Order: sequence, then C-alpha cells, then structure tokens
Amino acid sequence: MRLYVAPRAPNPRRVQMFLAEKGIHHIEQVNVDLNANEHKAAEFRQKSALARVPVLELDDGRMLSETRAICTWLEGHWPTPNLMGEDADERAFIEMADRRVEWYFMLPLANSIRHTHPGLAPLEQPQIAEFGQSQLPKAMETATWLDAELQRHDWVAGDRFTIADITAFCTVEFARLVRFKPSESGLHALQAWRDRVAARPSAL
Amino acid sequence: MRLYVAPRAPNPRRVQMFLAEKGIHHIEQVNVDLNANEHKAAEFRQKSALARVPVLELDDGRMLSETRAICTWLEGHWPTPNLMGEDADERAFIEMADRRVEWYFMLPLANSIRHTHPGLAPLEQPQIAEFGQSQLPKAMETATWLDAELQRHDWVAGDRFTIADITAFCTVEFARLVRFKPSESGLHALQAWRDRVAARPSAL
Repeated sequence: MRLYVAPRAPNPRRVQMFLAEKGIHHIEQVNVDLNANEHKAAEFRQKSALARVPVLELDDGRMLSETRAICTWLEGHWPTPNLMGEDADERAFIEMADRRVEWYFMLPLANSIRHTHPGLAPLEQPQIAEFGQSQLPKAMETATWLDAELQRHDWVAGDRFTIADITAFCTVEFARLVRFKPSESGLHALQAWRDRVAARPSAL
Repeated sequence: MRLYVAPRAPNPRRVQMFLAEKGIHHIEQVNVDLNANEHKAAEFRQKSALARVPVLELDDGRMLSETRAICTWLEGHWPTPNLMGEDADERAFIEMADRRVEWYFMLPLANSIRHTHPGLAPLEQPQIAEFGQSQLPKAMETATWLDAELQRHDWVAGDRFTIADITAFCTVEFARLVRFKPSESGLHALQAWRDRVAARPSAL
C-alpha cells in the first residue's frame, strides 16, 4: 500500500492526520510535485485520472482517490479509534459536519487563495482575482458559525474528536497563507479548539 | 419526518431521487422558496444554520442537512436496495465516484450557471461572469472523462446503479440550463447512460 501526497497541500494532510489518529504508520508515502505539474503527467494520471492528490494505492493494485473516500476505506479496515461514526445515524451527522466544513469553509478559503496567490498560478488557471477576493468573506462567515458551534460543544461534530475536526484543522492551518488567526478575528472558541487539536500528536 | 426541498434545485432532487429508488414515498416534502430568500430567513436558519436545502427533519426533531449525509442516514434506515456500498471497501469506491462527479462536474457546472445566469443573481452574490465562463470547460472536461468511464462500464461507479448515478444524472439534467446535451458534444456513452437513467421511475 502506498499513499501519494503533496507537501503543504491540505487534502493529503487530512489523510495523513487521519492515519496518525488511527496509529497507522506503516503506509509508504510518495510525494507528488504539484508545482512541477507531476500530477498532470500521464504516469500519474494512470493512478488518478482526474489528476488529484491524495491517492491510496491498494495492495491489489486498485487506486482510490478522494480524501474522504480514502478515509472511509481506512475506517473500514482500522475501525479503532472510530472517527466517522459508529452507526448510520452517527455517520450521517458526522458527515454533515464534515461536509459543512469542507464545502463552506475549506472550499471558499481554498478558492480565495488559489485565485489570488501568485505561487498558486501554476495550479489554478485562469486565476480570477475578483472571484478569489469574493470568497474569503464567505469562508469567514462559516468560521464565525463554527466558532459559535464550538462554544456549545468541544469538537466540530459534537462531544468527541472526529474526521470533521481533521478537515477543519487542516483548513485553519491552510488559512495561515492568508494570515488568518481565529483569535485575531475575535473567534476565541475556534482558536481554543485549534490549539487543542494542534496539541495532538497527529497534528505534527 | 419532513424533507425541505426547492423546485428545480439539483441537490434536493438528488435526495428525492434517492428516496424514490428506495421506494420511500411517505416523507412529507416542504418547498422552500429560494428566489424569495426563504432559506435565509431566521425561521429556516433554525433548521439549517448555513441556509442550505435540502434538510431532513427527523421524528425526534433533529435537523440533518447536506445531501449526501441525508442519503447516508436514509441508507442506514432503508438498506434495500443498496445504493452506497455493501461494505467499507465498496462504500469507499462508490464515495470516490460520487465525489468525483460532485466536485469536478456538478460544482464547476453549478458555478458556471450561478455566476452567469441572470435568474440566479439573487442566489449568487457577487456574480462574477468571468469566473462563471471559466468553469464550463472544466465541467466539460469531467463530462468527457465520465463518457470514457461509461464506455467501460454501464454505471458511474461500476456495474450497478448507485448514488453516483443519481448525482451525475441530476448534474446532467441541471446542465440543460446551459443547453448541454451529451450527444451534441460527441459524448454518446454519457448520452446513452443518461437516457437509461431517465427511463427509471425515480427520474420523474
């Protein structure tokens, strides 16, 4: 088994953190150089037709891409500690929390960076600065909602650490590129949660 | 139990089709008027904090939003016919297919419409036409990949109908707004698959 990742990219980091939370340390990791467009080369497209990282190459040769799908597979094979829900009811509510973070926080934040940061021009074509600038306020609106959630419960999906915390943490860490620090925006519950997650061994 | 939907919106349609495939017909459906901004009103935000449809109101009063999370919950309670995978391995590969459609076909297509269609100006602010125009080619690139997939197997995730077909079908139907017809773009396998899905009772 082999995991294809890219340094500093938030989605591979989600899987890496998920693995660390599970205590899985034996999967070989292979770096893909996004800046050199290695992910778009024919060789990598045989592993990932749509040129995305991360990809998990299974022992039987099948290629599994899409961060959350990889986590679903890992959860099935290493069920402890549970990170995605014990039964369908809990799975659904954790998925809701995870998707809210992914679609309304990570996506607009990533767009705000990808469409404005000169260093990401090779990855995002065309870069449309006006669009990028319009997305940061949307991400911040979700951050404000998340802060209110975290005033009511300790973790993103409720009273225990789940995959939704991993997605949110990787988003907040990614947001450093736009110098986002929750406490400086008055989001103290989000900051306290971020610091709790950052103290976990999986966050290294 | 009550499902909040919006006429012609693709995400509520995904849940409606999922219900029909399961043969679940007893859940009350309530229309939310997106054009009148009913989803952003305080009353609806109590059900859906981030102002999104669909939302499933459970019998115990809990509110579950996010299309795919609602489907996960429904699959748990009505396991037959299976639409999301029998075990973790199959669940992961179906999730991969579903997410590929959702992120790289539905999302850029929706952006191309939401950022250019005058009728969607109330829903997408700011509309940035240049961004919208840049997204249709990305959606079409994925449609071309999907066409190639469907030359190799009958259904989006493989050899049986799954949630990924529902997501893809609702996307192709939504794409009528930009007058997309797969066969007119030379995507004959995608067209044949679309016609097979359109013939199912759930597609009505």
